[in-house]
Amino acid sequence: MAAYRLQKRCDEEAVFVVEGPKMAAEAMTSAFVIRTVCATAEWLSVHADSIVASETFEVSPMELERLSNFKTPNQVWMLLERKQPKDCRNSKELILALDKIQDPGNLGTMLRTADWFGIRHVMCSSDTVSCYNPKVVQSSMGAVFRTQVDYVDLPQWLASCGIPIYGASLQGQPLNNTLTHTPAVLLIGNESRGISPEAMSQVTHPVLIPNIGGTAESLNAAVAAGILMHWLAS
Amino acid sequence: MAAYRLQKRCDEEAVFVVEGPKMAAEAMTSAFVIRTVCATAEWLSVHADSIVASETFEVSPMELERLSNFKTPNQVWMLLERKQPKDCRNSKELILALDKIQDPGNLGTMLRTADWFGIRHVMCSSDTVSCYNPKVVQSSMGAVFRTQVDYVDLPQWLASCGIPIYGASLQGQPLNNTLTHTPAVLLIGNESRGISPEAMSQVTHPVLIPNIGGTAESLNAAVAAGILMHWLAS
Repeated sequence: MAAYRLQKRCDEEAVFVVEGPKMAAEAMTSAFVIRTVCATAEWLSVHADSIVASETFEVSPMELERLSNFKTPNQVWMLLERKQPKDCRNSKELILALDKIQDPGNLGTMLRTADWFGIRHVMCSSDTVSCYNPKVVQSSMGAVFRTQVDYVDLPQWLASCGIPIYGASLQGQPLNNTLTHTPAVLLIGNESRGISPEAMSQVTHPVLIPNIGGTAESLNAAVAAGILMHWLAS
Repeated sequence: MAAYRLQKRCDEEAVFVVEGPKMAAEAMTSAFVIRTVCATAEWLSVHADSIVASETFEVSPMELERLSNFKTPNQVWMLLERKQPKDCRNSKELILALDKIQDPGNLGTMLRTADWFGIRHVMCSSDTVSCYNPKVVQSSMGAVFRTQVDYVDLPQWLASCGIPIYGASLQGQPLNNTLTHTPAVLLIGNESRGISPEAMSQVTHPVLIPNIGGTAESLNAAVAAGILMHWLAS
């Protein structure tokens, strides 16, 4: 099982790892198929009856440590099957689109924020960090279980989505001067380079979060995404 | 100089460490007094003429590594004197108040967002992580140089500030139904426990970021702070 610490192995088998009692509880109430559970006797004594999984193993804390992606492994390790992609082009809702997001913590935080604002579809460029990265799963606080996250050729997908596309741009209109529409796509760009030119060319509504102080160079990508999601979803 | 890797030593002398060319450039254009510069010959060859510091040393990359708080030290290390506290009770502006923020990355991101929205005063509870923590300095992207950050008995300070205090609370009014006033204080609580009861009792305007999805338990503290700062500052 320790081989699943390698992202490559998880990619090949279209599975992902979930760790700790909190995330395990989220996984057990989600629609995801649980393939394998490895847990301590303590955790199993409480949860054995509620597990629906192909295989369950009792492991020692030391064995758990060998499996874990984290410094302090915590009672339970699970292997889940990834979701099938789903076409959301005819969605009537707000869709989040992510262009080349690199930092797992940022992606997890954006999924958590999307979950808060009721955004159920997230379309990522194929070079955005995997939503099944253990750090993303953890920092999403369970949002990854409630959100459809798909990886596509993003400029091509944006060109074919047929609904307004909002994207932050220094040449954009201030938020307060811009009307909001739903359905729509909210496009968020890379942490240091912003939205790529190919994706930007598909933006129909360039918007600007006003730089009131005039001294800061930029906002953190997850904070900017949060402000824009609140603005569009509320 | 390596002793300044210890926060205690920095606290005793009321100094803090700044590293890397980007932060060093911010420090050199700020109002902070630079006590010591340790830099590689390469960095000094470009910047020696523009340094205003009590002492400057040329160091080897290996010596820099011994000084650094980071895995990959970068050309220049500086020791700066901390700012004197400043009473901002008569400020006519928006003030950010932080109650027991623990994570350096979150504090840095909040300072960066405050800088973007033109908030120049941040009042922290005495148990909030130090704004002079190297990770805070780094993740603030220079905002720490442009913001007055003071540590106080926060409930007592809130009780005496005499202006409206906005704070996020599950019992609060949705943002869209709430008028904004300036001057005001925006109070942000701890990452997992929210605003403490002592500070909450001083909140005059409890507000709520609507949980539209209804499934997420909470927002990341820096994201919630960003949404509230945008709402109050715009």
